Amino acid sequence: MAQRFPADEQSGGARPSVRSGVSRERASSVQAAAVDVITSRDNKWLKMFRAALRGTGPASGEPIGVEGPKLVVEGIRSGLEAEALLVTDASEGELERILQAASHSEAGIPRSRVLRTTEKLFASIAGTETPQGVAALFRQREWGFDDVLRGRANREGAFRGDASLIIVMAAVQDPGNAGTIVRSAEAFGATGVVATRGSADPWSPKALRASAGSALRLPLLRGSAIPILLAQLRTAGVKVIAASSRPAAAKTARGAQNKDPDLREPCAIFIGNESAGLPEEIERAADAWISIAINPDVESLNAGVAASVILFEAARQRRGI
Amino acid sequence: MAQRFPADEQSGGARPSVRSGVSRERASSVQAAAVDVITSRDNKWLKMFRAALRGTGPASGEPIGVEGPKLVVEGIRSGLEAEALLVTDASEGELERILQAASHSEAGIPRSRVLRTTEKLFASIAGTETPQGVAALFRQREWGFDDVLRGRANREGAFRGDASLIIVMAAVQDPGNAGTIVRSAEAFGATGVVATRGSADPWSPKALRASAGSALRLPLLRGSAIPILLAQLRTAGVKVIAASSRPAAAKTARGAQNKDPDLREPCAIFIGNESAGLPEEIERAADAWISIAINPDVESLNAGVAASVILFEAARQRRGI
Repeated sequence: MAQRFPADEQSGGARPSVRSGVSRERASSVQAAAVDVITSRDNKWLKMFRAALRGTGPASGEPIGVEGPKLVVEGIRSGLEAEALLVTDASEGELERILQAASHSEAGIPRSRVLRTTEKLFASIAGTETPQGVAALFRQREWGFDDVLRGRANREGAFRGDASLIIVMAAVQDPGNAGTIVRSAEAFGATGVVATRGSADPWSPKALRASAGSALRLPLLRGSAIPILLAQLRTAGVKVIAASSRPAAAKTARGAQNKDPDLREPCAIFIGNESAGLPEEIERAADAWISIAINPDVESLNAGVAASVILFEAARQRRGI
Repeated sequence: MAQRFPADEQSGGARPSVRSGVSRERASSVQAAAVDVITSRDNKWLKMFRAALRGTGPASGEPIGVEGPKLVVEGIRSGLEAEALLVTDASEGELERILQAASHSEAGIPRSRVLRTTEKLFASIAGTETPQGVAALFRQREWGFDDVLRGRANREGAFRGDASLIIVMAAVQDPGNAGTIVRSAEAFGATGVVATRGSADPWSPKALRASAGSALRLPLLRGSAIPILLAQLRTAGVKVIAASSRPAAAKTARGAQNKDPDLREPCAIFIGNESAGLPEEIERAADAWISIAINPDVESLNAGVAASVILFEAARQRRGI
């Protein structure tokens, strides 16, 4: 897309970079003011981007790293505050789209937070094999248990009378599965998602991509301790439902006394680890079990699929069809 | 697991490799006869394994490459014929398990087809980041359109009166999605799967892993041309159902005249590309559309999830609940 801005290319030149690795240049593009072009691998912003885009998810207080124009726009549209936006020359066109999205959002992006770097340096910090030249660091949104209970609408001041529908990932390990579950959770009207300690982080780069941006919108708690979560759910009157992608195990555990639970009631559905299933403390604490009838030749469903099918079933029951 | 077989370790020694890169050694293990240890990177078997385990799926006549003890055992249990089995010293324990599975299967594995190599060389041909020291090359099973129509039971001589339930992947691009769809197809009782030309190959290493072995069992056709497939389905009296992970698009296309289709009838459900959706020729040819109601804030479901939810719904309707 650089060819759309020939003036920019001419203005580039080979200016010496200052010691910090950032050279100030005045772009000839009409819209752009003074811009920072990062030319040193040791630049502190590049280091932050690299850590965020190649990590397994941000610690508390660290920014969420988001890569690719589509996800960055989703983040801005959802009202997240961008601490920094990093683009390459070739993504100039994308930048305009992003700033336009930002101008319609609450948070906005000050020009001073738009950083530029070379294709080569961008590739050195990107977490994908074919980097798209756009990345952002977003400030974490602080979701509370109440948000997960009542949904995003609650935070936005709207009243939504729906009963809680919470998906709890209990040591779901694959970030792709974690992201898929968050995407389906939002699609089927869940009020929130909880990732317990030991689960893949829904804000890790791979999970974010698999969530197609849902992880930037849906209320979610990360690193929750199971005993505390169970106590919170009890206090809030939310049923604990243990899901199994292995129907046989579920049937043994639940015996014959338990019919398929009513998913119209406020409930938290626990999805277990891909190979180990649910931890014992949840099997003991569960008010009900849910399993999906499958061909006995097949050992189990993919964890993301199992969660999605249960969410679909919950949405079907809640629509009353 | 090598420590379980100390006698083997002592017998190893540093024998010079012959020109072909294969050294014959007599293992001291009671069960094992003469074994080939491949010590050269240029060995023709290693090259075949590397191509199969790192490729995007076998061409017609080429073997299917399968990695990891679990999947290899699945392949053998499903009756596939192993052209070669490759193991490292550390996987000696796994080998015994595999040969035991083979002794219960129709195909079996002659000892002469068990090849051994070093951990290092195995890592150089493996398609995974943490290789498990076991891989196999399986001869392709030749499925026909009739198998996809009638299910695996047909091939095995059993009569199964179920109506055809076929999933057609029309340019599904991600091998993980393709594998997930095959896994769910088997789980929810589909009779077969078709991957049209341009789809990810269900027999590619990534799709095979995502299918958890289902792609080695379920009747499937690869590289089908859409016009021929549509003609075959018409002739067989199978309804063509277009699925959309984007409900809005589906609604526009189907207008108001079309109710949700009856999935108890013989039907082929077409799943489109992750970003482009279904090709026009299918939209035009479809007897019915199916879409999944989702939260309008969410653009679409993951393609694997969308297919799985429709399969779940088909299974639900067919069980009559």
